[in-house]
Amino acid sequence: MTASSSTKLRVTVWNEFRHERHSEEVQKHYPEGIHKTIAGFLGEAGLEVRTATLDEPEHGLTQEVLDSTDVLTWWGHMAHGDVSDEIVERVYKRVLDGMGLIVLHSGHFSKIFRKLMGTTCDLKWRESGDRERLWVVAPGHPITEGLGDYFEIEEEEMYGEHFDIPTPETLVFISWFTGGEVFRSGACYTRGRGKIFYFRPGHETLPTYHNKDVQRVIVNGVHWAAPTPGQPRVFGNTPALEGSK
Amino acid sequence: MTASSSTKLRVTVWNEFRHERHSEEVQKHYPEGIHKTIAGFLGEAGLEVRTATLDEPEHGLTQEVLDSTDVLTWWGHMAHGDVSDEIVERVYKRVLDGMGLIVLHSGHFSKIFRKLMGTTCDLKWRESGDRERLWVVAPGHPITEGLGDYFEIEEEEMYGEHFDIPTPETLVFISWFTGGEVFRSGACYTRGRGKIFYFRPGHETLPTYHNKDVQRVIVNGVHWAAPTPGQPRVFGNTPALEGSK
Amino acid sequence: MTASSSTKLRVTVWNEFRHERHSEEVQKHYPEGIHKTIAGFLGEAGLEVRTATLDEPEHGLTQEVLDSTDVLTWWGHMAHGDVSDEIVERVYKRVLDGMGLIVLHSGHFSKIFRKLMGTTCDLKWRESGDRERLWVVAPGHPITEGLGDYFEIEEEEMYGEHFDIPTPETLVFISWFTGGEVFRSGACYTRGRGKIFYFRPGHETLPTYHNKDVQRVIVNGVHWAAPTPGQPRVFGNTPALEGSK
Amino acid sequence: MTASSSTKLRVTVWNEFRHERHSEEVQKHYPEGIHKTIAGFLGEAGLEVRTATLDEPEHGLTQEVLDSTDVLTWWGHMAHGDVSDEIVERVYKRVLDGMGLIVLHSGHFSKIFRKLMGTTCDLKWRESGDRERLWVVAPGHPITEGLGDYFEIEEEEMYGEHFDIPTPETLVFISWFTGGEVFRSGACYTRGRGKIFYFRPGHETLPTYHNKDVQRVIVNGVHWAAPTPGQPRVFGNTPALEGSK
Repeated sequence: MTASSSTKLRVTVWNEFRHERHSEEVQKHYPEGIHKTIAGFLGEAGLEVRTATLDEPEHGLTQEVLDSTDVLTWWGHMAHGDVSDEIVERVYKRVLDGMGLIVLHSGHFSKIFRKLMGTTCDLKWRESGDRERLWVVAPGHPITEGLGDYFEIEEEEMYGEHFDIPTPETLVFISWFTGGEVFRSGACYTRGRGKIFYFRPGHETLPTYHNKDVQRVIVNGVHWAAPTPGQPRVFGNTPALEGSK
Repeated sequence: MTASSSTKLRVTVWNEFRHERHSEEVQKHYPEGIHKTIAGFLGEAGLEVRTATLDEPEHGLTQEVLDSTDVLTWWGHMAHGDVSDEIVERVYKRVLDGMGLIVLHSGHFSKIFRKLMGTTCDLKWRESGDRERLWVVAPGHPITEGLGDYFEIEEEEMYGEHFDIPTPETLVFISWFTGGEVFRSGACYTRGRGKIFYFRPGHETLPTYHNKDVQRVIVNGVHWAAPTPGQPRVFGNTPALEGSK
Repeated sequence: MTASSSTKLRVTVWNEFRHERHSEEVQKHYPEGIHKTIAGFLGEAGLEVRTATLDEPEHGLTQEVLDSTDVLTWWGHMAHGDVSDEIVERVYKRVLDGMGLIVLHSGHFSKIFRKLMGTTCDLKWRESGDRERLWVVAPGHPITEGLGDYFEIEEEEMYGEHFDIPTPETLVFISWFTGGEVFRSGACYTRGRGKIFYFRPGHETLPTYHNKDVQRVIVNGVHWAAPTPGQPRVFGNTPALEGSK
Repeated sequence: MTASSSTKLRVTVWNEFRHERHSEEVQKHYPEGIHKTIAGFLGEAGLEVRTATLDEPEHGLTQEVLDSTDVLTWWGHMAHGDVSDEIVERVYKRVLDGMGLIVLHSGHFSKIFRKLMGTTCDLKWRESGDRERLWVVAPGHPITEGLGDYFEIEEEEMYGEHFDIPTPETLVFISWFTGGEVFRSGACYTRGRGKIFYFRPGHETLPTYHNKDVQRVIVNGVHWAAPTPGQPRVFGNTPALEGSK
């Protein structure tokens, strides 16, 4: 009877991996792809990490890979439409069955996130060198471990409200941008037995994933989203309690 | 500058209308169809009501009908799969744009509800003469207007937890059943600008929609789900506040 | 069986009314007191309005006044400690019994708000001419009726996160301030049968309550916070359902 | 940069410890007091545990004890009024600063719980041998680790809705009782940096705290409520971002 686990959490870092192969600006920050940078700091934090990308067979997300994944992180942007509906359905079922999901930045428009949210996940945006300040509005939440009142990213793409998502179960961060906008930048949900964390920062032409606070939040997010051991849910026709009537 | 409206709310009552045409047991309680019974008490409550059913062209839900609907109520059971994806998409867009939606009983498995929730909406069930007590857990909520602590339905189909829905934004009712189960029977959500109310009772072989408390809750639900006048939401590329940088 | 009411909502506008009697800067904007300005636009919106202030007997909040109040608005700042605990308890009981409460600006530190929240309600602040932009994050909520994406106040006192409140049941507005802060500026709660709306703007040395959007939000808030007719709640020792065991 | 801790969580088990000294019926189940039973199974689960009771100096809750407590559990019933306001204030501040709090059964009426909730925390009750079934409505939540769909307590005191609490941030369990009632039996809150879990079962004349599922939930609750390391919150007058205006 213990609520902690001694085995390592198994994380799969998924990346669209298209920008990095065509843009020198992106390669400058992520020469091996965004996934390799994310996998790097997750591994240093003691997690068991592998990667998967869009152009691998089955997008690298075979049933076997998903079945041995505790938490999946998702970065996509220009090719959401190239993700097959079959794989989306597979990921969806695993989330409902308990796999954690961390959706990053432009992943807001991914098929899997929109399917889980039930909304368009649309927003305002601007690429023009805004400074971003992420304010903690849920101090004490595990995802804020080690943070102060806020942290800053010197330059980021702006995302602004209204963000068309369901009301977060827990709103962890609100971003301030130089140009006049705010954004619900850290949002927690559960769907079925699975925990979902949307985290805003991460524009591909900027070094955001090298920022230590951003890395800390993603590591914390993975720990928060870890599956809770328990029995599968039971649905369907069910008998009455004996002697109840 | 007023927050109340003098014009009548326009309600469209949608019904699958299949059981009623094939089952004498159902006809006994709803000789003209469940939609006619629901439309009847909504009309008596001063609402402007029309009906639509699955086997009409476009399921009775043309763009014109939806555009002139403030709140849509939905009952379906045996033919969820016969509802076309195109119509579901049309209803979905209207909900996000502000149309209220009241999902009744077995409508939990409808395409539109599952799409808006992002979950399977599965549950436990039993047809065996349970008594149902619906306890108010959000007294003061407009949907509970005129109710006491609880109300009862002498006989109903049992629906039991776990109900695979996202955490309700407001949980209004919890049902108790004779046979040992509980159920989150009144659940409020918003998606986009639209308000959604799921209300559990309403088995087709029982006279549930003739129950005065059930009628009262549905009338209250329609008023609660009425659209809020306001400007459409704005998304996309957006300039910075002048002089902000 | 109707969910709308034809009688006028009865609003009591409570004001500390101290700054206005000692500061020319405040008198410039509110020559008769902040309460008279608020009462003015509420009356124009068709509400039945009276006022009450700290230095009246029983702070103007006799049991009779409260019993005939549907919604109470509260502005205080420099004299929270002068409000008697007995009157706070009286207001508290009326809120739990269904009276709406609109807490304005520096009312965040009032005894009644802190008692209802269960937290310190502390925050960051700065008086230095920030511009404030209030972004709507709950479009479709009745309190946003008639608003667009956001509205602006050219100059306001800054309030910044972390705001020590419980997670709002509905977060309606998030403010952006020039100087780098964000704030949860419109927050809805229920306590017992009563609805509570905290609304941030309203510094005494600025003409905020003459702003048409601010007025609109307060009018909408009063309508939203109106009591729901229903029976009193029942507590205590209770018998089992007959024949249940 | 890690989100897990290798040091043991430090739990203080607080008990009123009055019933046990005067009632043979209570002594039968808890010969050394309810606190000793609770401390026993928490210790077996690998937690560092000590106890404190009402009639010790400062109720056993000195500043030093609280400062070295990660999670406090609270059982009280007949003597809530004997708990000094000064100690309640001390516990309150520690909760806002991050200490976890597990409130058990009749602790719903404790000063500390009512202060943190902002409501009366009143409810219905009956002592007459009801069976209780606790249904999991938040599968995947850490507090449900190791549980199935529901668990049962053969005999318990009934607590029934309406339970006068704020809407839980997460509702984990709903209880069914033989006699016709339901109850929100597992409810999570945050106040400041502190996490609070209310858990219903635990009548003093019944062997509830010897039930393995009840024990499991309390152990899980302690882990969930553990403080999150981070910096203290900052309030008050604050300068603008440099160069922001």
